Amino acid sequence: MANDKKFVQSITSRSEDFAQWYTDVVKEAKLCDYSSVKGCLNYLPNGYAIWENIQQDLDKRFKETGVENVYLPVLIPESLLKKEQNHIEGFAPEVAWVTHGGGEELEERFCVRPTSETLFCDHWQKVVKSYRDLPLVWNQWNSVFRWEKTTRPFLRSREFLWQEGHTLHATSEEALERTLQMFKVYIDFVTEDLAIPLVYGKKTESEKFAGAEATYTIEAMMHDGKALQSATSHFFGSEFPDSFDIKYLDKNNKLHSAYETSWGLSTRIIGAIIMVHGDDSGLVLPPRIAPTQAIVIPIAQHKEGVIEKANEVVELLKKNNIRTKIDDSEKSPGFKFAEQEMLGIPVRIEIGPKDIENNECVIVRRDNREKIVVKLDNLGNELPKILETIQKDMYDKAKNFLDEHIYEATTMEEMKKISNEKVGFIKAMWCGDPECEDYIKFETNGFGSRCIQENEKISDKCIYCGKDAKELVIWGKSY
Amino acid sequence: MANDKKFVQSITSRSEDFAQWYTDVVKEAKLCDYSSVKGCLNYLPNGYAIWENIQQDLDKRFKETGVENVYLPVLIPESLLKKEQNHIEGFAPEVAWVTHGGGEELEERFCVRPTSETLFCDHWQKVVKSYRDLPLVWNQWNSVFRWEKTTRPFLRSREFLWQEGHTLHATSEEALERTLQMFKVYIDFVTEDLAIPLVYGKKTESEKFAGAEATYTIEAMMHDGKALQSATSHFFGSEFPDSFDIKYLDKNNKLHSAYETSWGLSTRIIGAIIMVHGDDSGLVLPPRIAPTQAIVIPIAQHKEGVIEKANEVVELLKKNNIRTKIDDSEKSPGFKFAEQEMLGIPVRIEIGPKDIENNECVIVRRDNREKIVVKLDNLGNELPKILETIQKDMYDKAKNFLDEHIYEATTMEEMKKISNEKVGFIKAMWCGDPECEDYIKFETNGFGSRCIQENEKISDKCIYCGKDAKELVIWGKSY
Repeated sequence: MANDKKFVQSITSRSEDFAQWYTDVVKEAKLCDYSSVKGCLNYLPNGYAIWENIQQDLDKRFKETGVENVYLPVLIPESLLKKEQNHIEGFAPEVAWVTHGGGEELEERFCVRPTSETLFCDHWQKVVKSYRDLPLVWNQWNSVFRWEKTTRPFLRSREFLWQEGHTLHATSEEALERTLQMFKVYIDFVTEDLAIPLVYGKKTESEKFAGAEATYTIEAMMHDGKALQSATSHFFGSEFPDSFDIKYLDKNNKLHSAYETSWGLSTRIIGAIIMVHGDDSGLVLPPRIAPTQAIVIPIAQHKEGVIEKANEVVELLKKNNIRTKIDDSEKSPGFKFAEQEMLGIPVRIEIGPKDIENNECVIVRRDNREKIVVKLDNLGNELPKILETIQKDMYDKAKNFLDEHIYEATTMEEMKKISNEKVGFIKAMWCGDPECEDYIKFETNGFGSRCIQENEKISDKCIYCGKDAKELVIWGKSY
Repeated sequence: MANDKKFVQSITSRSEDFAQWYTDVVKEAKLCDYSSVKGCLNYLPNGYAIWENIQQDLDKRFKETGVENVYLPVLIPESLLKKEQNHIEGFAPEVAWVTHGGGEELEERFCVRPTSETLFCDHWQKVVKSYRDLPLVWNQWNSVFRWEKTTRPFLRSREFLWQEGHTLHATSEEALERTLQMFKVYIDFVTEDLAIPLVYGKKTESEKFAGAEATYTIEAMMHDGKALQSATSHFFGSEFPDSFDIKYLDKNNKLHSAYETSWGLSTRIIGAIIMVHGDDSGLVLPPRIAPTQAIVIPIAQHKEGVIEKANEVVELLKKNNIRTKIDDSEKSPGFKFAEQEMLGIPVRIEIGPKDIENNECVIVRRDNREKIVVKLDNLGNELPKILETIQKDMYDKAKNFLDEHIYEATTMEEMKKISNEKVGFIKAMWCGDPECEDYIKFETNGFGSRCIQENEKISDKCIYCGKDAKELVIWGKSY
């Protein structure tokens, strides 16, 4: 059993050092590691398989709303990137430049795409002629590159994987509707499939995306009380397409501006899954996106008939569309249990000679370690229900944590006290002045505005300046 | 009907100008176009959807053999690329170099990956310690970049999409077995799912991959008789991993070399689908990978009940897992038929008032234009069978074409005559000398060696030098 202990003890506890715990989980569960390319990650099989399931589920939701997938180039000419002023100011400092190709110095530099709005607009400028060509509702799954100085696995790296949706519409109303529709798709996906509860709303002016008119964000609370921006949906209005000279002929044959949106979710979300659900034994994966949903562990596997029965169980579960593996290696059961816990596999199924005699097996839930004895004849029916229960319980647990860690403040004294003594988010009223926003963040050691809560209020005055409040804002420290 | 004619007439016929026909199909079916990034493509919805289906089918086949997916960085440090001499010589002239990042000139240049062997080896050098860590059977779906001078849609572009599999093994035998296993996966996938018949075998020394010990290739014959290399599987032996100092401790605790493979298939294959199956009306897609398998076209759709019935048919087919769309736009039926043909949708389903009266519909096959009247009650059962028949007939038709265009030659006179008068491949014996290989290509105006046919022979002498022949080689012009 020495080995088992070593495996479990190798990670720091969350309460001792949350950042180190996170790094340990990423490493021990073999999700990703740093490559020799500074600041870039190798997405390893266990981590990439989570991303594949995210892609599959989210892509299905996209397509149900009429999204079509495309792929545009990895490089962007400098002149193209420069076409929209706010956009270039946002991205130019953090891009990587290609200056040589095919053995020659290039006349014009190319950057490795930090995001692809400019490429989509450039294409649309050529193909959009008439209202009949609209709307265009496109998305691509790709990687983008930003020259970050400090990096952390999944949370911030120079290259990361994401999807970026880009749409073009005949009217401002339709574009805004699409912005909100995709915002809703993200909310549904993250709460239903990832079991992560959210706060969400519009970003303030100073926090919105470079070049956008409005940005809608979904924010999750990590176990240390910090916020992780988990996806964003941007409404561009017509300014961005106008700067690319995208115009269409409307039904009256008059030239008209077009309206744009973009929206994205990245591999950061894997960081959120880890930090919302994980515990001191490692990863805890929501069943819907777990690459392996059940692992069968034979007990006393040298005894006659055990391995055979265990394999029967695997086949039975696979037939019931449960992603199942078996661990019939020579490792001790204790080691296998610890490994299942580290990898966050939602249930393990223990089956030994006595279980077989009783025609049953023992299901152990990863999320709360509950043991459930199930007759083998019922397993194919019972396990899907148990997995759905785990999915629901994981959401409820995280939702309770979120609710318990949202505070309200109506004075700066209160807000400073909460920010000093508690972890979590703080609700407070704000006048809309970016200066107040900055001061609030400064005086609370980093509680920035996360999102605006429309139609909600807890007082009439800005918590900082005391002038008339325009909005209720959720404030928090962030990743 | 003027519009319909314009649509159909807008493409050149295959016999008139095959290259122009190809370009026309790509453009009119809106598969891809050139972006503002010179030599790079925009993969548009119709083209990308084909790639998504290819990915899905092929990835399933990979995973059935135990492949795990990963993602490694888009950039490679120059020092890493240089570690294997043959490899750098193969790729250095055609890479793009990143020299600046985050506003500063870099100490070391990075290239945009032309292929990722070096990144996989670099990672493996760090993590592989013992025989217990092997084998590693990994794959990634990504894009690669090569500074090509002349480009053609799907066939050759600076950036293209592909999958690259990389595996590491304890023994040379196991690595060779994996090379051949993936070679077989490609053969099965391309013949079964894409309905493309193949010739296949080992590449000659001069045609193999930079750094590999052996390359296995699958080659398809386009309608103009030229070969398109459709996928390759490489056996690296231990030289490549040795140059990265990848060693493992075997069961006797002795340090041992490891053995590597890599294998890839790219978006070039979409070019093959077009040029094998397409005709003068446009694209013809094999049902298994067609994004839309059936399009329902209501006839006299203004009449009562027609659109409703057409929509019922769509729902019925979707329930039977057939990818179905409806075209109930205001365009004329003739225009819709021409469009279905251009897009290569395997069947269209015509349904008008008279059909509804008889409780039937008319299925028109894209591949041979056969009309099949089917009772609506049987449609859910019949259409899957019809689609399978189309898949099989498309393969058989292409296989006949291939067989009819493979010639044999035992003298250079014969070979030159065939190369002048016919299109297709030529089988001829070869001594193994690369000089003879070069001369044969030169004297036949470009019939290079495509692949070696082991265990087959048509004479004892090299067709060029007359010395003892080592191998039968299939020769052909290539894309």
